[in-house]
Amino acid sequence: MNPSQVNFNSPRKFRTTLKSKCKETFFPDDPFRQFKNEKPLGKAKKTLQYFVPIFEWLPQYNLKMFRFDLLAGITITSLAIPQGISYAKLAEIPPIIGLYSSFVPALVYAILGSSKHVAVGTVAACSLLIADTIGSKVSSKDDPTLYLHLVFTAAFITGVFQAALGFLRLGILVDFLSHSTITGFMGGTAIIICLQQLKGLLGVNHFTTKTDVVSVLHAVFKNRHEWKWETAVVGLVFLVFLLFTRYLRQRKPKLFWVSAMAPMVVVVLGCLLAYFTRDRKHSIQTVGSLHKGLNPISIKYLNFDAKYLPYTLKAGIITGIIALAEGIAIGRSFAIMNNEQVDGNKEMIAFGFMNIVGSCFSCYLTTGPFSKTAVNYNSGCKTAASNLVMAIGMMLTLLFLAPLFSYTPLVALSAIIMSAMLGLINYEEAYHLFKVDKFDFCICLAAFFGVAFITMDTGLMISVALALLRALLYVARPAACKLGKLPDSTLYRDTEQYAEASGPPGILAIQLGSPIYYANGNYIRERILRWIRNDEGNGKAVKHVLLDLTGITSIDTTGIETLVEVLRMLEVKHIKMKIVNPRLEVLEKMMKSKFVDKIGKESIFLCMEDAVEASYDFSVTAEKQGFEEQRSGVA
Amino acid sequence: MNPSQVNFNSPRKFRTTLKSKCKETFFPDDPFRQFKNEKPLGKAKKTLQYFVPIFEWLPQYNLKMFRFDLLAGITITSLAIPQGISYAKLAEIPPIIGLYSSFVPALVYAILGSSKHVAVGTVAACSLLIADTIGSKVSSKDDPTLYLHLVFTAAFITGVFQAALGFLRLGILVDFLSHSTITGFMGGTAIIICLQQLKGLLGVNHFTTKTDVVSVLHAVFKNRHEWKWETAVVGLVFLVFLLFTRYLRQRKPKLFWVSAMAPMVVVVLGCLLAYFTRDRKHSIQTVGSLHKGLNPISIKYLNFDAKYLPYTLKAGIITGIIALAEGIAIGRSFAIMNNEQVDGNKEMIAFGFMNIVGSCFSCYLTTGPFSKTAVNYNSGCKTAASNLVMAIGMMLTLLFLAPLFSYTPLVALSAIIMSAMLGLINYEEAYHLFKVDKFDFCICLAAFFGVAFITMDTGLMISVALALLRALLYVARPAACKLGKLPDSTLYRDTEQYAEASGPPGILAIQLGSPIYYANGNYIRERILRWIRNDEGNGKAVKHVLLDLTGITSIDTTGIETLVEVLRMLEVKHIKMKIVNPRLEVLEKMMKSKFVDKIGKESIFLCMEDAVEASYDFSVTAEKQGFEEQRSGVA
Repeated sequence: MNPSQVNFNSPRKFRTTLKSKCKETFFPDDPFRQFKNEKPLGKAKKTLQYFVPIFEWLPQYNLKMFRFDLLAGITITSLAIPQGISYAKLAEIPPIIGLYSSFVPALVYAILGSSKHVAVGTVAACSLLIADTIGSKVSSKDDPTLYLHLVFTAAFITGVFQAALGFLRLGILVDFLSHSTITGFMGGTAIIICLQQLKGLLGVNHFTTKTDVVSVLHAVFKNRHEWKWETAVVGLVFLVFLLFTRYLRQRKPKLFWVSAMAPMVVVVLGCLLAYFTRDRKHSIQTVGSLHKGLNPISIKYLNFDAKYLPYTLKAGIITGIIALAEGIAIGRSFAIMNNEQVDGNKEMIAFGFMNIVGSCFSCYLTTGPFSKTAVNYNSGCKTAASNLVMAIGMMLTLLFLAPLFSYTPLVALSAIIMSAMLGLINYEEAYHLFKVDKFDFCICLAAFFGVAFITMDTGLMISVALALLRALLYVARPAACKLGKLPDSTLYRDTEQYAEASGPPGILAIQLGSPIYYANGNYIRERILRWIRNDEGNGKAVKHVLLDLTGITSIDTTGIETLVEVLRMLEVKHIKMKIVNPRLEVLEKMMKSKFVDKIGKESIFLCMEDAVEASYDFSVTAEKQGFEEQRSGVA
Repeated sequence: MNPSQVNFNSPRKFRTTLKSKCKETFFPDDPFRQFKNEKPLGKAKKTLQYFVPIFEWLPQYNLKMFRFDLLAGITITSLAIPQGISYAKLAEIPPIIGLYSSFVPALVYAILGSSKHVAVGTVAACSLLIADTIGSKVSSKDDPTLYLHLVFTAAFITGVFQAALGFLRLGILVDFLSHSTITGFMGGTAIIICLQQLKGLLGVNHFTTKTDVVSVLHAVFKNRHEWKWETAVVGLVFLVFLLFTRYLRQRKPKLFWVSAMAPMVVVVLGCLLAYFTRDRKHSIQTVGSLHKGLNPISIKYLNFDAKYLPYTLKAGIITGIIALAEGIAIGRSFAIMNNEQVDGNKEMIAFGFMNIVGSCFSCYLTTGPFSKTAVNYNSGCKTAASNLVMAIGMMLTLLFLAPLFSYTPLVALSAIIMSAMLGLINYEEAYHLFKVDKFDFCICLAAFFGVAFITMDTGLMISVALALLRALLYVARPAACKLGKLPDSTLYRDTEQYAEASGPPGILAIQLGSPIYYANGNYIRERILRWIRNDEGNGKAVKHVLLDLTGITSIDTTGIETLVEVLRMLEVKHIKMKIVNPRLEVLEKMMKSKFVDKIGKESIFLCMEDAVEASYDFSVTAEKQGFEEQRSGVA
């Protein structure tokens, strides 16, 4: 027997457990640890630095860091211009909005953002989702002004929603968007966006507003007479060029700047081509007028009319969650590579303010897109100052160069979008999911096919629902296993996993999975009964049932009732029940509900070995002696 | 070191794991075990007996059992008549339907039911819920025929839904209706039903169709001028009499038949009173005409018009789930008392057919109500034959006695309903929940107040959502704890629970809660980092992180990625990571995803003791020697 015993101290107070649970739920990263041993002035300074990270890195900033940030900033600016125009076309808003959206939000993020690597910009999936949701109420062609104002409003709602999540420390919500869901969602989105680009690539004029594969392909082939082979040839050349530069980057990572600059090259070449062919009959379609000047103020255009609110709310909240998931996940993954930390809730506040301020200055939804952030990281950025450089670059572009880009051919934009999207279809990840976890693969497939064949939000929701179902199924059917003693040791392990482990005669040792909740009470009772029946069916009389609760961290009242019922059922069968290693919370509930009094403190043990020994002390049988001899042979 | 090692056998095949998971999810009670060693003829016989339980008990049936069943059957018949009429009034359908509903369904259950104690009948909560849902589309006053047909249709839908759940082995759905939810729901329903009875008790004519407390009280007090003191006095006398018999039963359980017969006594007294006062000016309101004759066929009235389908579907499915939860839970709890088993899925099929057949013979929703089943059990019923006796009793009543009950005063019904409902408000249970588990108490309160102040289905849904949220929160924030070695033993236990447990120097031993899923990957990473920071903050260098996975029965791909990230982060900090006791499924996923290759097989241990020893073999430090001395002193 071990000298230590189960600790039956009186349960912790409700306030203590509530406080500890709230802390684990909302502050798992313990963000205020650094304030503990500070004086008031130091505390104020740290608080300011905590909420406005620029004060944290600016004092240590030096020229050497700036040289890196400048280079990174210029690189991402050259990417931001073509991407901004392209994605604005996807969102069916004027292309200049795309340029605006890389200016003001980048400034805000440079001040509030806590990640060193995130580069701010618009994203394709969310742009299409906005067009899809708002477009279902207001047509971007029939009433472009109202449509644009609703897009600003959606961005404002996104911002408020994101900031609220951050302040309320509800980063936990974003955790429920699983990696499998995102893989499938991105893949599906990439497919439908690529197909949409056939419009630009083939020069089709009449198109559908729906996003699913069937509608889009139908629209493309119905309008075969509109196909223009000149546009298609130019587009394919551009696409091949872009894909080649991407391939080059994959082979020689040092040449990342080639692929980063390629879209800009395509735009410039396209502009030249469009400029020189502008008087021909079959002239190439271009994005059209881009006026000089900085972001106009748009706060007065925010439209909270009850007629449109359901649509702006839906667009704002869904894109808000997706944008957070992308931005935070990307910031985190680069931070992990450098052994740094990113505070998810702080990032949410930064993204939130970025969108609130942005929506007041003619910007639509921005986040930290994967492609831009990767380029930023590869260009060697050191701090969020690279966003500042991009903002200045964008400002100069808006003030002096914007009109030049009005010659950008639509076909160049389509090629840029297509090449970006093809990179988002992650075959390897899907195959990895298939190999490791079939359920994760199903979640991924659900998102992929849902997005591709129904609508983007339906696909996303089906996938999230499947993922939640899995978590609930886990709770409803916790794994439980029969334990056996490993030869020549004191360890009790799963008999299915370790074939050599064998149960002591007359004893049924069971390890329950976690937790014992209302959803699995019936299951656990049935499962225990089945083991007893099986053992008895095999001619082994069961005298003791030992429940190892090591893995059980939580129990509710129905769970306790289940244990009481099992105890009662076993009593009728003249079987003794023993509890092994109840954890803190479980033991507390057992004491509060008087279960401990019912089963008796002498039936609760600290480890399996003790419980087995105690079982033999009470039941001296012929079998036991045999087992004792075997044990003494071991010792 | 233990002689046994972690078993790195190649992972099981997908088909094997899928089969075992499906079995645990859908067949946890292993219903076909009895067919295993049977010949074809025996198998056919057992299958028939399995699906039609009457073939199981009828061959062993004898006169002695029949004597008990006869007594029980007569007792529940005397309860079924007043209850049937009362609850039919609650559902706002002709009272005769209530009598029909104890005839045909009881016959069906006697053949198909697997519980020996369940007595079939209508229930108050579902009756009101049907009235509420269907009444929101079709008024029972303006179009009583259509309303009645929709009630039959809802019962038919309930039956199909219940039978389908049973055949698909989806009993798991009912498991998600927790005991806390049911306690709160029943309490809230009891309150609103009691308040509704004020209408009958005070003789008010104008009333509301809403069910919430505020509307009902408003309706009662607005129509003060309609109050009739004569009715109120009679009602109160009846109510006091009924409550007294209930009190008597609680004090002397042998007198259960007094309280079982009391409603019948009230009805008979009420009828006599109404009969003799029938010519007075202020005559007592009675239920009105009840025709002789058995259930008319109603299959031709089932109405699947798309206009009403959403309402009948909603009523059918919600009441179906509640009825199942009540019927199965009650059958189970009485079976447990007698050390018998009730197969939930089989019961669902029985309830389902009962309602399908019932709805074709002018019956509305029936299940195994608590009050009737308890009376049946206390009367000593031996088999489902007591339902057969009740069906015959009901048939005789319908054929010969029905018109007599047309004098039943509404006030007597109100008193019967109120006294039944007051027994459903389970203060003690709510207090027990409050003491043992505050979250369960909140779930209960949500159902109670939701039902009492909003609507019945809203209350139910809020409560179920809260319960699901809890299960999800459990998955999102699994309990993890720091382990320390108990003095003079080889056991590692939670340092918070066992203050004397202390961590070996340089080693951070962590026990993770189950499971590692996408929803908690970030949390687990942060939590591990926080422990390392805390230890380092306290001046203890961490050289090894030992993750005890004993409690982890499941992991998904994001979970594996989390472990990879933790491994990478620890490598940067020059900390070694070791895995202790991975369970079967977890180890399989680790092998499939090559995590085992990344961390190395030599870093995976069977028990904490081995992992700690191995850590010291690799890191000979001054600290270690101190710890070694301490250990040798122990051994």
